[in-house]
Amino acid sequence: MDYSFSSSVAGLKPSAIREILKFTSVPGYVPFAAGNPAPEALPTEAVAKIAADIMSETPVAALQYSVTEGYTPLRDHLKEYMKEKHNVGTTDDELIITSGAQQVMNLSAMVLCNVGDSVICENPSFIGSLNAFRSFGLNLVGVDMDDDGMNIEKLEAALKANPNAKFIYTIPTFQNPSGVCMSLAKRKAVYELAKKYQILILEDNPYSDTRFAGKELPTIKSFDTDGLVIYAGTFSKVISPGLRVGYAIAPKEIISKMVVCKQTSDVHTSIFSQMICHEFMTKYDYEEHLDRNRVIYRKKCDLMTYLMDKNIGDKISYIKPEGGLFIWVKLPDSVDMTAFCTRAVEKKVATVPGTAFTTDPSELSHCFRINYSTPTDEQIVKGITVLGQVANEFIK
Amino acid sequence: MDYSFSSSVAGLKPSAIREILKFTSVPGYVPFAAGNPAPEALPTEAVAKIAADIMSETPVAALQYSVTEGYTPLRDHLKEYMKEKHNVGTTDDELIITSGAQQVMNLSAMVLCNVGDSVICENPSFIGSLNAFRSFGLNLVGVDMDDDGMNIEKLEAALKANPNAKFIYTIPTFQNPSGVCMSLAKRKAVYELAKKYQILILEDNPYSDTRFAGKELPTIKSFDTDGLVIYAGTFSKVISPGLRVGYAIAPKEIISKMVVCKQTSDVHTSIFSQMICHEFMTKYDYEEHLDRNRVIYRKKCDLMTYLMDKNIGDKISYIKPEGGLFIWVKLPDSVDMTAFCTRAVEKKVATVPGTAFTTDPSELSHCFRINYSTPTDEQIVKGITVLGQVANEFIK
Repeated sequence: MDYSFSSSVAGLKPSAIREILKFTSVPGYVPFAAGNPAPEALPTEAVAKIAADIMSETPVAALQYSVTEGYTPLRDHLKEYMKEKHNVGTTDDELIITSGAQQVMNLSAMVLCNVGDSVICENPSFIGSLNAFRSFGLNLVGVDMDDDGMNIEKLEAALKANPNAKFIYTIPTFQNPSGVCMSLAKRKAVYELAKKYQILILEDNPYSDTRFAGKELPTIKSFDTDGLVIYAGTFSKVISPGLRVGYAIAPKEIISKMVVCKQTSDVHTSIFSQMICHEFMTKYDYEEHLDRNRVIYRKKCDLMTYLMDKNIGDKISYIKPEGGLFIWVKLPDSVDMTAFCTRAVEKKVATVPGTAFTTDPSELSHCFRINYSTPTDEQIVKGITVLGQVANEFIK
Repeated sequence: MDYSFSSSVAGLKPSAIREILKFTSVPGYVPFAAGNPAPEALPTEAVAKIAADIMSETPVAALQYSVTEGYTPLRDHLKEYMKEKHNVGTTDDELIITSGAQQVMNLSAMVLCNVGDSVICENPSFIGSLNAFRSFGLNLVGVDMDDDGMNIEKLEAALKANPNAKFIYTIPTFQNPSGVCMSLAKRKAVYELAKKYQILILEDNPYSDTRFAGKELPTIKSFDTDGLVIYAGTFSKVISPGLRVGYAIAPKEIISKMVVCKQTSDVHTSIFSQMICHEFMTKYDYEEHLDRNRVIYRKKCDLMTYLMDKNIGDKISYIKPEGGLFIWVKLPDSVDMTAFCTRAVEKKVATVPGTAFTTDPSELSHCFRINYSTPTDEQIVKGITVLGQVANEFIK
């Protein structure tokens, strides 16, 4: 039989990162392409204890059907925590637990957009989100990034040019892949533009709890007195990605539509996973855990940037991260980035070519992304040595 | 701000069942509206042991990111098991692990259909699936059910009248809500019609492993030499719904599009959940577990039907189940079903009105669905007594 696919999906390719991830799980490759938390950052002992306690105390609740909105104790705790710690959430907001923050992108597109609508995205941006939007047949309008976040003039031009745009998608803190932190002034400017043009903001914030240097900046959601912001949070970077627990905090009307769509998507998120996250947040010292992980990531990042400065500092440029999991490396304009990354893979170092992240996949990129959380210290040393050799081949 | 929602989603209501489920979790209500496995059927001790073993032996793998297709050992085992036990799967097929079988419905619609396309559904049918199709803006074409499955003449008429239909959605075994088992002849007839009209079949089979009487019938997928059938399976009824693990077996081309869409939906299904299902299937006596559950469900069903025959047998009609979790009760045409169910809820017995399951929600129904797996024996006695009282009020 000849299969015909939906027009939105027919042209979609598997995520370059997921495909590379598969490839780099082959032993012997340096996994700079991944985005996994460091194995030593995962609270394995605590989760082992928690899982055992849950299965001994409330085993039926952990295995039975639950409600779509999410496990009530976790929802209640998160609302309080996000309000207290980050001033996120108003009395007009509600919270839904999702199967990872990825599902927030999926549900936002599903709830808000018709085929052919536009969404405004930072360019470059996280491929998983861009592909979620593409899978609903949406038109991606890219806004170039400055060193302190989206270019505000270009954002306003994009808003003027795309009155059918349904939301602005942004990762203000440790943007993936660029690593950029949006300045406070720009966070306010983006919010004001959203208000002026009456458009929603989808604020994706997976990385802020990984900050190991610099000063914390308020989320855009913390300014949200007008019901304009959908906030996406996740436990993937701070407890476990494998458990697949994320959440959205957004105006009640939007969350109630998300609940309906989540019912039809996966009924609810694994209740055992949700209970584990709740117990970890409430019965363990969550802030101490975050601090402990910050030390791990600062050390790994320091090692990587020290070696980069030493080996290839004169040939490439990058912004030294203050958090997140990635370094965005810029090659001189004369260098063919794809050839560079291909050569690195031949030498068993996997990076992600910058073109994977552009809103227009045909756009030329001179950047690639490397990750410091997944590799061991030995792999970081080996990987940066190899990238130095490749740089010596390509950049005279 | 005034929020505008996607046209497919704007009119969607929360699933009546989910909403009633919330309501009936209020203590004091007899939960005939639910569809939960019996608490005593959940393998809590085994899962406790398995979870502890996983967290002691491979904790990082259980908490780390994994691949979208699913946990390889589980995929491999399921392929072998489904081939051996049910003759499901050919060399042209592939298998994807999903977040419950519900996600198979979501991904099938996402991958195969554009807004405005039709899907052909048994009428009545499972509301979760119907709403999944509605959430993608699809037109539901209902085909009436006979006592041995879809009416084949009406199915062919629907196929002729709807050349833009993308698939036939069917639950051949212990159909939800009607409880009907499609006869072997009809299974073959449905397959031949799909071949004739070159349309896919989405075969949803959550209940066949609960069979406690009668003879097992082959799945439609077992005839699938032409690559026409997407088979949806799940562990929700036999291990745990809360873990959210299901799967699809379908032609490779379709599965590969599903993988792309699952990446953008939730990246992958909880890996801890997948590992638990794998260990339970391979290290425990899975068949013995299924047999043990069959005894539980037969007893509960026997109790319920014995009491129904005794209390209301002269006033209502129903088909005695040989498996599944539900009884579909038909009231005399003269009785207002909604009033009947409302009166039952007032007397603290929750049932699901038949209108929840019709492809056309404005269609009149004289049926309601009750569940025997969730309530305790005491609740079954109490609930059927109350339904007998309500029947005495409504049916003279």
